[in-house]
Amino acid sequence: MSSRQAITGIRSRVFRVPLEEPMQDARHGLQTYFELVTAEIETADGQSGLGYTYTIGTGGHATKAMIDHDLAPMLIGHDADDIDTLYDEMQSRLHYVGRGGIASFAISAIDIALWDLRGLRQNLPLWKMAGGAGKSPLTYRGGVDLNYPIEKLVQSVGGYLDQGYRAIKIKIGKPDLAEDVARLRAVRDRIGPSNKLMVDGNFGYDLDRAMAAGKAFEPFDLTWFEEPMEPDDFAGYGELAKATRVPLAMGENLHTLQEFKHAFEHSSLSFIQPDASNCGGVTGFLRVAKLAEPLGIPVCSHGMQELHVSLVPAVPNAGWLEVHAFQIDRYTLRPLVVVDGRAVAPDEPGSGVRFDWAALEALPIA
Amino acid sequence: MSSRQAITGIRSRVFRVPLEEPMQDARHGLQTYFELVTAEIETADGQSGLGYTYTIGTGGHATKAMIDHDLAPMLIGHDADDIDTLYDEMQSRLHYVGRGGIASFAISAIDIALWDLRGLRQNLPLWKMAGGAGKSPLTYRGGVDLNYPIEKLVQSVGGYLDQGYRAIKIKIGKPDLAEDVARLRAVRDRIGPSNKLMVDGNFGYDLDRAMAAGKAFEPFDLTWFEEPMEPDDFAGYGELAKATRVPLAMGENLHTLQEFKHAFEHSSLSFIQPDASNCGGVTGFLRVAKLAEPLGIPVCSHGMQELHVSLVPAVPNAGWLEVHAFQIDRYTLRPLVVVDGRAVAPDEPGSGVRFDWAALEALPIA
Repeated sequence: MSSRQAITGIRSRVFRVPLEEPMQDARHGLQTYFELVTAEIETADGQSGLGYTYTIGTGGHATKAMIDHDLAPMLIGHDADDIDTLYDEMQSRLHYVGRGGIASFAISAIDIALWDLRGLRQNLPLWKMAGGAGKSPLTYRGGVDLNYPIEKLVQSVGGYLDQGYRAIKIKIGKPDLAEDVARLRAVRDRIGPSNKLMVDGNFGYDLDRAMAAGKAFEPFDLTWFEEPMEPDDFAGYGELAKATRVPLAMGENLHTLQEFKHAFEHSSLSFIQPDASNCGGVTGFLRVAKLAEPLGIPVCSHGMQELHVSLVPAVPNAGWLEVHAFQIDRYTLRPLVVVDGRAVAPDEPGSGVRFDWAALEALPIA
Repeated sequence: MSSRQAITGIRSRVFRVPLEEPMQDARHGLQTYFELVTAEIETADGQSGLGYTYTIGTGGHATKAMIDHDLAPMLIGHDADDIDTLYDEMQSRLHYVGRGGIASFAISAIDIALWDLRGLRQNLPLWKMAGGAGKSPLTYRGGVDLNYPIEKLVQSVGGYLDQGYRAIKIKIGKPDLAEDVARLRAVRDRIGPSNKLMVDGNFGYDLDRAMAAGKAFEPFDLTWFEEPMEPDDFAGYGELAKATRVPLAMGENLHTLQEFKHAFEHSSLSFIQPDASNCGGVTGFLRVAKLAEPLGIPVCSHGMQELHVSLVPAVPNAGWLEVHAFQIDRYTLRPLVVVDGRAVAPDEPGSGVRFDWAALEALPIA
């Protein structure tokens, strides 16, 4: 290896980022902040790569501890560009306490930093390194809006249309299915028949309720019904797919390649939604995409739109980019660009994500 | 609730405990220490309960961080005896960064402390609280000995017989199957036909190699072939079970009830081996045992013999207690008692595990 690429240091930090307004879905309670864990990797030539991951409120410090105590000591001195090998070695080293959970978040942050370094060194943007099939993904706006009264919900989706979105996802999972149906009808009326509509159940249903919901949602021409049930219930998804014509999607809570394999084998998904912040970074995302390709399953994303904008369109089986409600835009130097329902990946070398450190450092301590 | 039982504080610590001599298995490399993470929970009445978990070298600090930052804030003020509710709330709170991994280790440590508190308060030993079916489990000595030359291996298992063990497990997974067979033959010759023999592959095989190994091991009257393949390859275990007469066992790397359900459904296991230190503590262990009971699958254990000695015999479907190579005995106040191949659970109230804090505190800082 070139010693210039040797990893010389890793700095990790945790930020607690407040939400502009509290959000709610079916299972995660009311959220008022998210956690951002950053990992800056330095190499011998003075280059610095930026990686990071998110949590929805817990686990940020555990992720940082794992980076500092378990990953940094094994990475220092290794060639930063040996990404696949380092990826497998990180997974192996953390296997006993890993196979998902915090290990996946920590590995994701490191892996993203290594890809950033590669791009900076090779003068390539992420969308080209990730396959280069395209740089302008179909994009939908995902609301976290189960706590919104119906009028506010309708107003909110109207706002998304005004911002250029042509596809919108809302949360469902009210105790009374009729209430979800009413909300869905109001939203479909507002956005009209030509714009796309998705719903997200955040695993709030059991199989019986999911079947009833799937049937009740059929009139609304949904693009997908996302994560109706516990993500580990792979066979349950398969059962549900047989019982409804609404296409199924999930993936944000699958953290290992084995979990994705189980889903592909048993769950009859129409879309897969890996999240590079928790499925092993760019490497994990691309491995999932590769598994999905021969199955003809489009690869979408969950959150982290500022990075996924470069991954989703880059693969041959590109699906939809989610633009999540977490307002990371105000802490990055390049707000997401959306034109006529499509986002545009950055052409700068590296991951294309740079934080406004001053804004992050001004936040209350996590 | 009685305010006397309200949780008032949680103190966590990480210890790096050296091994007397380095150990090796098929996949974890050479180990020279393990990590012990302790969690002491105090209640308003001044009572203190002790919980803990182990890692094999990474993840200890992440586990502590999760206890301190994510679990302690949600637990303070709650009734310590509301164990099932707190268990489900911990799982729910950590779902996004959990479903296994570090979350399972952190929850295990807390849950064990809560059961300890319950026993102290009710003046009951753990084996009675856990079901009370028995207190004296069949016990086997598990060596971590893949790095031992064959003469040392034979000497080592001879030593276990001298210590009163009537069942012995060795590691397998040499690059050349013939070498494993030679080691197995030498060990079987040494222990004779009446003592029990198990082997542990530490997921070092793929399906083809596991099938070849299973066939090659058939002459040695093995009680089980443990974890030949990746623990997530649930269907692979089912295939292997069809191809060999050697009974299969696994469980130490299953961290959620859903993973155990997948294993029960697809893997044709003859024994299940949950580990209370990583499957959710006493509560997690007992939930696994309950799933296994109607299937007629005996519940064994992995490591943590000083605690599992009270859990394995307590359930109606009791299997074998593993006595692991980690020498925790020198850091506990009650070394494990083994008489004629059976261990004996303590009758003291609580978990029955008390550490020699002075010995732990004398260790080099983790």
